[in-house]
Amino acid sequence: MTPVTETAAPPRPRPGGRTARIRAQVLAAVEAELTEHGYDALTVDTVAARAGVHRTTVYRRWRDVGGLIADVFAAASDLDWHPPDTGALRGDLTALNREIQDSLTEKSSIAMALIAVSFRSEDAARALRQLWEERYTQCEIVVRRAIERGEVPADTDTRAVLVAATAPVYHRLVLLRTPADAGLPERTAAAAALAAQGGAFRSTEAESDPADGP
Amino acid sequence: MTPVTETAAPPRPRPGGRTARIRAQVLAAVEAELTEHGYDALTVDTVAARAGVHRTTVYRRWRDVGGLIADVFAAASDLDWHPPDTGALRGDLTALNREIQDSLTEKSSIAMALIAVSFRSEDAARALRQLWEERYTQCEIVVRRAIERGEVPADTDTRAVLVAATAPVYHRLVLLRTPADAGLPERTAAAAALAAQGGAFRSTEAESDPADGP
Repeated sequence: MTPVTETAAPPRPRPGGRTARIRAQVLAAVEAELTEHGYDALTVDTVAARAGVHRTTVYRRWRDVGGLIADVFAAASDLDWHPPDTGALRGDLTALNREIQDSLTEKSSIAMALIAVSFRSEDAARALRQLWEERYTQCEIVVRRAIERGEVPADTDTRAVLVAATAPVYHRLVLLRTPADAGLPERTAAAAALAAQGGAFRSTEAESDPADGP
Repeated sequence: MTPVTETAAPPRPRPGGRTARIRAQVLAAVEAELTEHGYDALTVDTVAARAGVHRTTVYRRWRDVGGLIADVFAAASDLDWHPPDTGALRGDLTALNREIQDSLTEKSSIAMALIAVSFRSEDAARALRQLWEERYTQCEIVVRRAIERGEVPADTDTRAVLVAATAPVYHRLVLLRTPADAGLPERTAAAAALAAQGGAFRSTEAESDPADGP
């Protein structure tokens, strides 16, 4: 979910440091071009020039704009990322929402740029869907911990809670395009936590072993 | 909010029926071109041809693609629209969410097409923001009625309830691009209603006369 931002971080060093360094330069150039000039202006040549990498290197490795975008999404995937653990559902959801709001409102937001691109390219839409799926899955532990603590019913639908908590932040900032509001992450998180405690997100069929552990 | 769909309805007859008829034909052609071929392929000439209207007529009245898009948004505004009145907050929000889900998932959804366009054009983004603002304002009566019935605290932030109820539907269908789910409108509405009843959306400063009427 949130850290589509993490894109900006260079990929971890790999065997073959030069390859990793070139990838980092090229992906940083793609992101800079995207946030400054948008998808329409993106070409392999402008990316290569900005990255200071020979264009044939970029063509050979990424082939075209679609390949570059796909790799930006791949780099945004961060399996080492862990959601906040504040000891309470409301606090965890608030912290998550703050990350989301920050990533969407920072200057030259790559998260916002990638969302915009997903309306231009089917490949990007698929990659973003996959990235979000991965983030929400990583965040489910937040609700599972709340179940274990007895904060919410055992048959609570973890994904539904996460979507309810985070959707208003995305909706306001991305679709309604209202200005950021410092109180929004917490208010939204608190409402979702309260609804979850009240049983609003219980699954129709209770899971057989809901506390199956993280 | 929802009835970005209403766009499809021809404008009401006006003094000068021919003018209104031409407008209806042209806007229907814009919508058809948008949903079938997207914003990139949209030109005044293809719209004129599809509408069966002389291109100089279209140029004279709408000037360019921006003018056409702006008029599609203007036509989507429907001040005669009234939100559902089921007698309970949960029922009203569920009915609203059903309208939203229908408008986003129908074949060749103009609502979805206009959202996509808002990521391409600043004018379209502004028009969509205005349209949404208008719809949410029209829907506030749903929460005000709940306040009058004593269903939710008197100082409930009407807009916050509406956004919490509707955002997950938009988030799932527009951004996460998950398939439509028949139960989603009601589950989401029920969670927001429960949170509102629990006081999750009380404004920090209570309004002086919250039951000031619709």
